[in-house]
Amino acid sequence: MNNSFVLRGGIAFSESENSIVTYYRGYLVCVDGICKGAFTELPDEYKSLQLYDYGERLIIPGMTDLHVHAPQYTFRGIGMDEELLEWLNTYTFPEEAKYADLDYALKAYEYFAEDLRRCFTTRAVVFGTLHNEATIKLMDLLEDTGVITYVGKVNMDRNGGEHLQEKDAKASIEATLQWLNAIQGKYKNTMPILTPRFIPSCSDELMKELGRLSAERDLRIQSHLSENLSEIAWVNELVPESTCYANAYEMFDTMGTPERPTIMAHCVHSDEREMAILKKHGAYIAHCADSNMNLTSGIAPIKKFLDAGINVGLGTDVAAGSSMNMLKTMLITLQASKMYYRLVDSNVKPLTFEEVFYMATVGGGKYFGKVGSFKEGYEFDAVVIDDSKMYSMRDMSIRERIERMCYNDADAIIKDKFVRGKKVYS
Amino acid sequence: MNNSFVLRGGIAFSESENSIVTYYRGYLVCVDGICKGAFTELPDEYKSLQLYDYGERLIIPGMTDLHVHAPQYTFRGIGMDEELLEWLNTYTFPEEAKYADLDYALKAYEYFAEDLRRCFTTRAVVFGTLHNEATIKLMDLLEDTGVITYVGKVNMDRNGGEHLQEKDAKASIEATLQWLNAIQGKYKNTMPILTPRFIPSCSDELMKELGRLSAERDLRIQSHLSENLSEIAWVNELVPESTCYANAYEMFDTMGTPERPTIMAHCVHSDEREMAILKKHGAYIAHCADSNMNLTSGIAPIKKFLDAGINVGLGTDVAAGSSMNMLKTMLITLQASKMYYRLVDSNVKPLTFEEVFYMATVGGGKYFGKVGSFKEGYEFDAVVIDDSKMYSMRDMSIRERIERMCYNDADAIIKDKFVRGKKVYS
Repeated sequence: MNNSFVLRGGIAFSESENSIVTYYRGYLVCVDGICKGAFTELPDEYKSLQLYDYGERLIIPGMTDLHVHAPQYTFRGIGMDEELLEWLNTYTFPEEAKYADLDYALKAYEYFAEDLRRCFTTRAVVFGTLHNEATIKLMDLLEDTGVITYVGKVNMDRNGGEHLQEKDAKASIEATLQWLNAIQGKYKNTMPILTPRFIPSCSDELMKELGRLSAERDLRIQSHLSENLSEIAWVNELVPESTCYANAYEMFDTMGTPERPTIMAHCVHSDEREMAILKKHGAYIAHCADSNMNLTSGIAPIKKFLDAGINVGLGTDVAAGSSMNMLKTMLITLQASKMYYRLVDSNVKPLTFEEVFYMATVGGGKYFGKVGSFKEGYEFDAVVIDDSKMYSMRDMSIRERIERMCYNDADAIIKDKFVRGKKVYS
Repeated sequence: MNNSFVLRGGIAFSESENSIVTYYRGYLVCVDGICKGAFTELPDEYKSLQLYDYGERLIIPGMTDLHVHAPQYTFRGIGMDEELLEWLNTYTFPEEAKYADLDYALKAYEYFAEDLRRCFTTRAVVFGTLHNEATIKLMDLLEDTGVITYVGKVNMDRNGGEHLQEKDAKASIEATLQWLNAIQGKYKNTMPILTPRFIPSCSDELMKELGRLSAERDLRIQSHLSENLSEIAWVNELVPESTCYANAYEMFDTMGTPERPTIMAHCVHSDEREMAILKKHGAYIAHCADSNMNLTSGIAPIKKFLDAGINVGLGTDVAAGSSMNMLKTMLITLQASKMYYRLVDSNVKPLTFEEVFYMATVGGGKYFGKVGSFKEGYEFDAVVIDDSKMYSMRDMSIRERIERMCYNDADAIIKDKFVRGKKVYS
């Protein structure tokens, strides 16, 4: 199978935030890894291409996971009765400290990479640990999956405890430069991203240096923002001169620019002031509803963010989110928004299925360019799905089938997965 | 395999609402379908029994699904952007009307019964439709699964529309008596339960007659209570002399007694007054968190109900809940209670994993007698689970494994399922 071909099946993709376009037994054309569009009848000019007919199967754009912690994957689903800071100290930091051992890291990251290859995700933005060698190993493994990723060696020079902390800002920056040198030109699909864990983990000096490095080398940044009330109070103590948590990042020039956008995970408690900062910088919010429920953080007012024109994608946030399955993340995103409307503010309407499908595909995909759609000119990321386990007593429309698939993720079986026109899983 | 044997594996069950007892490579003894307890060392008196060693697999009590609509199963997962009353009229009532056609019903109920057999549920309380023949077919099929159930022919003599409504109270009661006659003595594991859909579907006369029938024939009742705000307002108009929705049921003698307990699904908006009524009558609340989030109903304050000593079990409420998988229901129950704490009332602590495991097993199991535990004297309902897909980098405790299994339901594979000591699925 080369990078130019035609797929046939039940096609669905977002036309806009509010509409999904579908084709029953439609044609999807890929030329040199780029989508030429979806069609009811195959245009003559593409009739010479190899056609792969998937019959009654569904074909949707690959999904983007904007926030996932690779080293947390193998302990997902435990300690979920804790809140953020207790969970980090009890479960996460001790686990991440083990990635100093390269053999340990290799084995654990093999599990992560293999499961990432097998899931609905074709693009991901990934946290590693603070360890250079383990992070490079992770990047090697991810490059082999065919999934396109940004991966960050984590920076943290305070509050990590004895076993998960760099000596100081200087040591952290030096390690970062060594990491960047070691991987320079090494990968086609795996890009580095600067990754200050969050303000409590990074001294002012380290944050400033990372802000400078980001601008100097045109490197993007990912971090966490306003996830948990205790965390927010702590940031307020740590950076008393900031007007809010988002402003603290801004002060250190780590909030990015529209051309070099920063990803901020969570924003559960972000108010109008933080929204203005996020919007001004063209930042992306990685909405992690599963995680935010599991750690009792709260529910982010995503509809408000969308209405304000802020970039929003979805993140699984493993291991505070318990699965890399983006369909499950979509379901929980819908449920969370319904509860925000019902319990917090009835002026903020629940997200529609259309909006959530958009965020899972185009919303997060935009971070990677023209990704997440089957419109002409988009990179050809696609997932072919067998949903026949979810029988019905009548013919369901393609639109109904993608909704019920999301509410029953266990019954949606991935048949083939393509990234930039290359089949990466079958 | 007869009804007396020993199972060996990783055993977990609730010791109380707040604690789970576990055995690594422990022994579980079943004699004549009754559990003789779990043991670290197998007592001499049971050494002559056949031993089935499940190695590293998990063994937990079967789960009770206190609320599930069989005829809704095959359209689960669509129309989920609607609220209750719109969803009923647009999707549910038109679908249920089709069960007048016995061929249709048979085919659809075969799917339902087979999936019920394959899931974690060993006891279920099931809604059929208003159609006698279809409901009897459903009961036939359920009897064959080995799962123990209560099944209700639905009563509804108003507001169902042209195609899903009985002529009047008299016709509805007559049909009910015919149904009861037709199944008398027919089943070992399948019991009838009176099923007024909810107040808006049943005239005062019908409700009164059902209350009388319940007492006369010692038949239990299931219905819905305080799920949705529009529904509650409507009940207030329909039964203006009631002090609250629960009181309306009470007025018609349909709230049951501790010996003949009524199941009320939802109770999302039940206040102290409704709680007092539920408690006084020994009623069971079927908590359906997945459904309540999907239909934007809200979150029931389950911790308050437990603290008040009200009986609470879990229900999947297919198709407003989208899956019969009780593990998924447990996960969403936990997330819902965390959001109630965070967003509604910080005096109501989130449910712990222990409490939710208890409700899924013993809490609902109690409705069926001594069910849902491996303590001595309980009926032997058990599920053997292979969780090896969910690899870990370290040995997880049995307690950790059952928690992560619940957060990753797709990775928990049922190996064997027993009901009253009989293997019903393998």
